[in-house]
Amino acid sequence: MSFATARGPSFGLATDQGVLDLGRRFGGRFGGVRGMLAGWKEALPLLQDLARAPPDHALAEVEFLPVVPDAAKIIGIGLNYRSHVGEAAGRAPPEFPRVFSRWNDTLLGHGQPMRRPLVSAHLDFEGELAVIIGKPGRHIPAARAMEHVAGYACFNDGSVRDWQKHTTTSGKNFHATGPLGPWMVTADEIPDPTALTLTTRLNGEQVQRASTGELIYDIPFLIEYISTITPLAPGDVIATGTPEGVALHRDPPLWLKPGDVVEVEVSGIGTLRNPVAEEA
Amino acid sequence: MSFATARGPSFGLATDQGVLDLGRRFGGRFGGVRGMLAGWKEALPLLQDLARAPPDHALAEVEFLPVVPDAAKIIGIGLNYRSHVGEAAGRAPPEFPRVFSRWNDTLLGHGQPMRRPLVSAHLDFEGELAVIIGKPGRHIPAARAMEHVAGYACFNDGSVRDWQKHTTTSGKNFHATGPLGPWMVTADEIPDPTALTLTTRLNGEQVQRASTGELIYDIPFLIEYISTITPLAPGDVIATGTPEGVALHRDPPLWLKPGDVVEVEVSGIGTLRNPVAEEA
Repeated sequence: MSFATARGPSFGLATDQGVLDLGRRFGGRFGGVRGMLAGWKEALPLLQDLARAPPDHALAEVEFLPVVPDAAKIIGIGLNYRSHVGEAAGRAPPEFPRVFSRWNDTLLGHGQPMRRPLVSAHLDFEGELAVIIGKPGRHIPAARAMEHVAGYACFNDGSVRDWQKHTTTSGKNFHATGPLGPWMVTADEIPDPTALTLTTRLNGEQVQRASTGELIYDIPFLIEYISTITPLAPGDVIATGTPEGVALHRDPPLWLKPGDVVEVEVSGIGTLRNPVAEEA
Repeated sequence: MSFATARGPSFGLATDQGVLDLGRRFGGRFGGVRGMLAGWKEALPLLQDLARAPPDHALAEVEFLPVVPDAAKIIGIGLNYRSHVGEAAGRAPPEFPRVFSRWNDTLLGHGQPMRRPLVSAHLDFEGELAVIIGKPGRHIPAARAMEHVAGYACFNDGSVRDWQKHTTTSGKNFHATGPLGPWMVTADEIPDPTALTLTTRLNGEQVQRASTGELIYDIPFLIEYISTITPLAPGDVIATGTPEGVALHRDPPLWLKPGDVVEVEVSGIGTLRNPVAEEA
């Protein structure tokens, strides 16, 4: 996980007891989650040495930051659940993955407010399962793709729908609209990422629910497809898409407004909860 | 400019006499062009002190790197010349800028080979004027936008057309397809960026020619539009779009193939020349 205290940003391990501050304990080595994933072979024995260490912070006393605040590539996939394709004007499933890209300054940590832009009242939620890359690679065959996954997090692919009509990139890149967290759960703890339940709640009420097994393009296929285009690197994030239930396709639309609280829960990972506020 | 020698990557000033190695002379301070733009107030007096310094390298002995190798945001604009809109199936000009994003590892320096992907024979050129941001900002009004421009470079928005049909992001993000250079010319040397002549040549033959005054959405408008979505930061790059003449809309198409040489020249800036090679 990535977090901040009064001393500044750091990264660490979240346990039932609290947060182990790896930024402090490793004396700045690795720099953050992205660097630790890149240096995993050196990091692993250091982490094992810390197995019985007492926590440095209570979870409640840290500010969560996006799991990988400096992710080099955040790759979103549009229309990747049949149910969402259906509600989006009954379109046929796309012939290829609908890839788009987010800048990492769109990201937020658990608890940080999603910012509704000054120029739009059409901010929407999209609960998603995010995949975080560990081992780098290009031209990764689907059959070996899962070796490249470091872990998983919840993602809320906040979308500004009127600007998304201009172009996908515009609507998906408003500053501070994409919560990623609360932490990464390592891949070894998620034996079957196709059997997770994804639930989104708006002000406590369920608005999306699906199994990650319903993905049209599954995680191995996405890794193969994306790595055909570009090398994948430690800390890169693939947001696998959202199921039906988004605000846009409700009548009337359920646009996010200041004071709302959105939760994205993925079984086995946790719950990513963010309030909504006006643009700062 | 950014470049590499046997000692590794560095950045510097290109003059008629050669290259002033700022990486070496500043002892690692600023880190690169992006850092120097971010620390411009501290950098300027240091640069003035070097006004009469002899060059450290001949231009011919350095390897050019992309002007801003670590640009955080590379924002492309599609269909931004009427002539190109016309050839693209006679479409009407877009109602809003067609924004897309490139990752910075798509970038190349002057002279470095554009890589035709293994999976496609449909690599295309797009000569463009690139704007490099100096002063950061959000919600920058068009009337003040030019204050945020550090300078200009030539750009070749290499596009893989069959994959671009999947999504714009896919076709515009193949690794090592986007030359940016050869250097940045500072804004004070370009009094009127709407009066530049943009020329693209393929193997010495002119394939594109336009005035940058023909942009549908001009530089101030683009900066206002993009900064409505996201903060702009030093080193961010806006690729302003390409005029008619691309390979895709020729009969037969003039796809780039290994051994070809593409040049993008912008008057007052220079010529960005890149060979084409197979994916490494």
